[in-house]
Amino acid sequence: MHIHDTITALATASGAGAIAIIRVSGEKSIAIVNSIFKAKSGKSLINQDSHTLHLGNIYDKNRIIDEVLVSLFKGTKSYTGEPTVEISCHGSAYIQQEILQLLLRKGCRAAKAGEFTLRAFVNGKMDLSQAEAVADLIASDNAGSHQIAMQQMRGGFSAEIANLRQELLDFASLIELELDFSEEDVEFANREHFQQLITKITRVLKRLIDSFATGNVIKNGIPVAIVGEPNVGKSTLLNALLNEERAIVSDIAGTTRDSIEDEISIGGIGFRFIDTAGIRETVDVIEGLGIKKTFEKIAQAQVVIFLIDAGKFQVDDSKFQIEVETIKNKYPQKNLVIVANKVDQLSDEETQRLISTLSQIEGPSHHLLSAKTKQGVEELQHVLLDFVNTGALRNNETLVTNSRHYDALLKALEEIERVQEGIDSGLTGDLLAIDIRQALYHFGEITGQVTNDELLGNIFANFCIGK
Amino acid sequence: MHIHDTITALATASGAGAIAIIRVSGEKSIAIVNSIFKAKSGKSLINQDSHTLHLGNIYDKNRIIDEVLVSLFKGTKSYTGEPTVEISCHGSAYIQQEILQLLLRKGCRAAKAGEFTLRAFVNGKMDLSQAEAVADLIASDNAGSHQIAMQQMRGGFSAEIANLRQELLDFASLIELELDFSEEDVEFANREHFQQLITKITRVLKRLIDSFATGNVIKNGIPVAIVGEPNVGKSTLLNALLNEERAIVSDIAGTTRDSIEDEISIGGIGFRFIDTAGIRETVDVIEGLGIKKTFEKIAQAQVVIFLIDAGKFQVDDSKFQIEVETIKNKYPQKNLVIVANKVDQLSDEETQRLISTLSQIEGPSHHLLSAKTKQGVEELQHVLLDFVNTGALRNNETLVTNSRHYDALLKALEEIERVQEGIDSGLTGDLLAIDIRQALYHFGEITGQVTNDELLGNIFANFCIGK
Repeated sequence: MHIHDTITALATASGAGAIAIIRVSGEKSIAIVNSIFKAKSGKSLINQDSHTLHLGNIYDKNRIIDEVLVSLFKGTKSYTGEPTVEISCHGSAYIQQEILQLLLRKGCRAAKAGEFTLRAFVNGKMDLSQAEAVADLIASDNAGSHQIAMQQMRGGFSAEIANLRQELLDFASLIELELDFSEEDVEFANREHFQQLITKITRVLKRLIDSFATGNVIKNGIPVAIVGEPNVGKSTLLNALLNEERAIVSDIAGTTRDSIEDEISIGGIGFRFIDTAGIRETVDVIEGLGIKKTFEKIAQAQVVIFLIDAGKFQVDDSKFQIEVETIKNKYPQKNLVIVANKVDQLSDEETQRLISTLSQIEGPSHHLLSAKTKQGVEELQHVLLDFVNTGALRNNETLVTNSRHYDALLKALEEIERVQEGIDSGLTGDLLAIDIRQALYHFGEITGQVTNDELLGNIFANFCIGK
Repeated sequence: MHIHDTITALATASGAGAIAIIRVSGEKSIAIVNSIFKAKSGKSLINQDSHTLHLGNIYDKNRIIDEVLVSLFKGTKSYTGEPTVEISCHGSAYIQQEILQLLLRKGCRAAKAGEFTLRAFVNGKMDLSQAEAVADLIASDNAGSHQIAMQQMRGGFSAEIANLRQELLDFASLIELELDFSEEDVEFANREHFQQLITKITRVLKRLIDSFATGNVIKNGIPVAIVGEPNVGKSTLLNALLNEERAIVSDIAGTTRDSIEDEISIGGIGFRFIDTAGIRETVDVIEGLGIKKTFEKIAQAQVVIFLIDAGKFQVDDSKFQIEVETIKNKYPQKNLVIVANKVDQLSDEETQRLISTLSQIEGPSHHLLSAKTKQGVEELQHVLLDFVNTGALRNNETLVTNSRHYDALLKALEEIERVQEGIDSGLTGDLLAIDIRQALYHFGEITGQVTNDELLGNIFANFCIGK
C-alpha cells in the first residue's frame, strides 16, 4: 500500500480554545503549507530543518487569515512516517475552517477518522495493536485504563505476540523444509523443542485470554448496581466515594463535569455506578415493569451494592430479607455487598444489633458507613477494589482489553491445541504445518501482519478525526 | 511590573481530541518541563535551540504519563515574551489533567484567564488594543469580525493612535518647554503646525468614533427581527439565506452545528435573526404579554423583516396594514422590509396584484421571493448587506469595535475640542498643556501606555484560560 495524497484535519478538540492545531500529512504537505504561509523570517519552509517551529502568517491570496506557528516534520521523522506539518492557529472555529478550506483548495484531502494513525501503521511506525492503543489512550479516563493503553501503545503486548509468532514461524519453516526432503526422512525441527514452544505458547495464550476479564473491566469501568430506596443516601455515597483529587481536577481545568457523574475513579480504577430504584419500591408497579428494570440493571453489573438506611432499618424486616435472598438466588455470580448508610445516627447498642442481624445473612458481605461523616467510606473503596485484580496492574502485566484481540487469541489457542493434538497423535509434518499456519494467521491478525481493508476500515472508523 | 512565577494551562479547547496543548510560560518553564521530560534523543531540553521540537515521554517518577512533543521558545522569542514550553500530548482529558497536576506539583501556577496574553502585554510584545484583539479574533465567527480583529491585532488601529499620540506628545513637550523660558517669551511650538495637528486629530477621532456604529454591528452581528406568523416559512427562509459555504464547512469539520442557527453569515457579515411571534398572533394573549415581547425584540433589532405568505395574502387585509403601520410609527428608525414568501405559488396575475398592493405602502421596501425555489433569495441578501457599511470593510478601514476604545476616543475628542477652544481664545501655553495632557491620557488608555490593575483585570478576565 503506497499513499500519494496529502491529508488534513483539525487535530485538537472542536470548539473554541486559545490554540487549535491543523495537521497536514503526506508527500506534498510541506509544499502545500509553504504555498499559503509567509514566515516572519522571510524564509521558505522547504529548506528548513525537521523538528523546527516557524512563526508567520497564513495568506489566502492577499488576505491574512491568521498569524500561526508551523511545526515541521520532514522525511519519515513524524507521527505518520511521512512529511507532516502542524499549523498552530488561533482557536476560533472560523479561522480553523478558513485554513482547512484553503488547504483543501490547495490540494489536500480531508482526512478520515483515524487516517493519520492508519498511515503510521501502513508506514511501519507502529503495529496494529499499538495503533488501536492510541484510540484507547485518548479515550482513557482513569489511571487503570490509561496504564493499559500506554503499555499497549508502547508495544508491550505486541512484542510478546510478535516474539511467539516469530518462534512459531521458525518452526513452521523448518517443518515445511522437511516436506521438501520428505523422502529422506530428516527432522530439521527438533520435536522436543517444538513441544516446549507449543507448551509455552499455550500457557501465554491462556494467560492473555484470562487477562481479558480484568483488562476489559479496567478499560470500561466496573459496573456497580446500587439497589436502594430513595433517600437512603445514594448520591451522598457517590459523593463520598468520589476521591478528593477529582474535585481538584475539575477546579483546575474548568472541565465541564459540573454534576457528580456515575463514573467514579477509585484507586485509579473506573467504577460505573448504575442507579436502580430498588426492589421494594417497584413491586407495586403495574406488570412489574419497575422490578424488571432493576433486575436488568443488576444483570449488567459485576458488583451489587444493597444500600440501606441504618437509622430506619428494622431488625425483623422480612421484606429486606426476601429482597436479599431474591438477588442472591437470581444472580449467584454477582458480588453482593450490603451497605448500611447513616450509621452515625445509631447508638453503639443499635450498631451492634445491626451488625449481628447482617451477620446472620449468609453470602453477601456487609459494610457499615456514614457517607455524611465519611466514616467507613475508605473501607468500602477497598472492598470495591478487591473485586478487581489490581495486582495485574501493579505488576504491569500485559492485559488484553480489546475484544478483537481476545477473539484472535481464542482462535490462535484453538489452532495451537489442534497442533498439540497433532503432536500427541503423531501427525505428519505436512498436516502439522497447516494448523501452525492457521495459528500464525491469528497471531498476525493482532499485530496487523495479516490484515485486510475491511478490518482496517472497522478499526480506524472508531478513531476521532485528526488522529 | 516584573513577573517571577511560571504559569500553565490547557491551551486547546477542552474535551477529547487527537492532540491537546499544555502551555507553560515563565522563567522556570524550561527547567520545570525538563524535570519531567525524557527526550528520545536522551538530550536535556536546557541546551536545545529555541523554536525546536522534541519527542519524548512525560514521567511522573517512574510512571510514563504520555508520549509527547515539546516545543521550545527561549528568551523573549515567544508569544508571552518569556521562556515558554508547549507540550503537545494525546488529547485525553485524563492525560491533560495528569500532566497539568504534575506541572503544578513541580512549581507552576495555574494560569488565570488571559494571563498569557497579559504577560505578552506586560513584556511589550503587544499593546493593549492588540491584546484585546486576540480575544476578539478567537471569538470571531465570520469574515467581517475576523477581518476587524485581525487588523486590530496586527496593530492597524493602535499604530494610528500611537502616531497621533506621539505627535501630540512632541507638541506638549515643546509647549511645556516654553514654560521654562516664559520670561523670554519664546515659542518653540509652531502654533500653525499645532493647529494643523489638532485639526487632523479631530478629524481622525471623529472618523474612528463614527466607525464604531459599523464596527460594533460587524463584530456582534446585525440583529434582524423576523415578524411573521407560524408557517409563513421562517425556517425555510433562514435555510435559504444560509450560504452554501457554511453548509460545506459543517460537513468538513464535523462541527456541532446540526440545526440551523439564528446567526447566519451573509457576504462575510454576521446577521443575528431574532424570531418573533408576529403581532397578529399575539393580540389575544392576556394583558398583551405576547405583543410586548414582540415589540421588545423589534426594539433590539436594526432590521425588521415583515414576512408574509404570498399565497394566503389578501389584498384588502386591513390587519396587515395596521400591523405595518404600527411598526412604522413605533420604530421609525428601524429598517423595515416586507418580504413576501412562497411567490412560486402565485400566478403572474396574482404576483402583479401583490406587487401593486405592496407598492402602495409608504415607507418600507418590499421584496418577493420563494425560500423553497431560492428565487429572489440572493436579492434579499443584497438588501440586508446594504444596511451595513461594507465599504469600510472592503477598503480595510480601521473600525472601532470595542466600547472601551469608543469611550476613550469620545473622552479624547472632548479634550481635543477643549484644546481647540483654548487655541481659539488665545489660552496661554501652561493652560493648553493641561488639556493636551488629558487628551494624551485617553489616547494612552487605548494602547495601554496608561493603565492600572483594575482595568487590566477587567480586560483579561474576559479571555479564555490558556490564552
